[in-house]
Amino acid sequence: MSEPRPTVLKIGGSVITDKKGELAARTYEINRLAEEIHNANITNLIIVHGGGSFGHPVAEKYKIKEGYKEEPQRIGFCETHHVMTVLNGLFMDSLVWHSVPAVSIMPSSCIITENGRIKQFEDAPVKGLLKMGFTPVLYGDAVLDAKLGFTVLSGDQLVSALAVKFNAKGIVIGIDEDGVFDSDPKLEETARMYEHLTLEELRKLHGKLGKTVACDVTGGMFGKITELIPAVEQRIPVKIVNATAPRAVCRALQGEKVKGTMIEKE
Amino acid sequence: MSEPRPTVLKIGGSVITDKKGELAARTYEINRLAEEIHNANITNLIIVHGGGSFGHPVAEKYKIKEGYKEEPQRIGFCETHHVMTVLNGLFMDSLVWHSVPAVSIMPSSCIITENGRIKQFEDAPVKGLLKMGFTPVLYGDAVLDAKLGFTVLSGDQLVSALAVKFNAKGIVIGIDEDGVFDSDPKLEETARMYEHLTLEELRKLHGKLGKTVACDVTGGMFGKITELIPAVEQRIPVKIVNATAPRAVCRALQGEKVKGTMIEKE
Repeated sequence: MSEPRPTVLKIGGSVITDKKGELAARTYEINRLAEEIHNANITNLIIVHGGGSFGHPVAEKYKIKEGYKEEPQRIGFCETHHVMTVLNGLFMDSLVWHSVPAVSIMPSSCIITENGRIKQFEDAPVKGLLKMGFTPVLYGDAVLDAKLGFTVLSGDQLVSALAVKFNAKGIVIGIDEDGVFDSDPKLEETARMYEHLTLEELRKLHGKLGKTVACDVTGGMFGKITELIPAVEQRIPVKIVNATAPRAVCRALQGEKVKGTMIEKE
Repeated sequence: MSEPRPTVLKIGGSVITDKKGELAARTYEINRLAEEIHNANITNLIIVHGGGSFGHPVAEKYKIKEGYKEEPQRIGFCETHHVMTVLNGLFMDSLVWHSVPAVSIMPSSCIITENGRIKQFEDAPVKGLLKMGFTPVLYGDAVLDAKLGFTVLSGDQLVSALAVKFNAKGIVIGIDEDGVFDSDPKLEETARMYEHLTLEELRKLHGKLGKTVACDVTGGMFGKITELIPAVEQRIPVKIVNATAPRAVCRALQGEKVKGTMIEKE
């Protein structure tokens, strides 16, 4: 009997936090999304969330992504990791309160990177949780790195790695825009949304996609999309939807037609 | 070059929480202990804390320790794990605020038990943190179990496992009593404290030690002491002190003479 294939849901940091603030959680959005995830009522779900105004400003202040270079970064690493657990705690609180069988998995407790890429991943806990019908919840985190000492592991790299590792049947990415645009829709009125992208088209977008407006140490929309390539290559379809639009995440999880960008191998 | 030998510090749940309440953190004690740990100024430190009125009441309500038997326990597992991360978050907040280079490690993200005993432990993150001069902080947690589905992993089992794994130079256990007594000092005025116990004497205490008064799913003082045997067997000395007494933990960490019970192999 083959293992059931999970769905991987990513909730962007810009959805559940105000990226222009610092440690500014959007608790209303967190609660709405927890309710939507409960209502979607799907089993075999893995959730990953971003850092938004929790992880990014601290990580940037101490240049955590670049690796260990000097002593003051040490407490910066502790702070970056800690604020991410605080944001995760707010999300977990709401998920459990909404009866989602959610269990947090701390990436830095089971993953070590090398030059920023996942090298070691003790996946037995995630696998075990899925098998027992739980919903593992992971997040972008400050992690140890075999070459750099430490670095930042983005939620997007995690999404792709989890999808490939557990042969996901699909990825749903909830961002604060309707989908992927040919330029930044926050800056350009004429920005056009892609409804469908193939892997070839995705690769051609290199350099074309606008960077996100507010700070994001893990590389804006371009970096996010590029991270998805390994999953798309393995024929795992990716649907990018607007998580700030009520019911978009719920409907996408249920496989309904939702406005957004679909990315498929061909 | 041999690895430096760490000290393992356990802070009992009854010290940092009010065990007669529910989700009742003693934030004053947490802050005082974080300051003491900062002042002790020792490198190569691993901290483990208990669950107190966070983990224990929820774990007991849903019988998490006994393993998975029925559906309502599922959300109970999620709750038990979640409330432990909340207590850990309060402790981490204070440690980082006091400039202790503390990084939390989530036991359930890297440990799987079998019939309640640690079976798999991905220790690379703890090892890496120690090597880089960080202070890993672990805690009693609701974990997956290869036989029971899930169970409760006590902070005490963790302390012993970490001490043995990393060949600790010593263990300091901070509880809410002056040391180990021949009967419960909270109930009996004539209770006598042991200043020194050998492994042989410790083994003879089976059945003699009083259970702690308030609820503790992981087995009261008797269970706690028994867990230490593997470490003591490996000639790792254990000092049990009163963590509610100002400066006792700080002085014990610095190797000063402090009132309490010393346990050694011979």
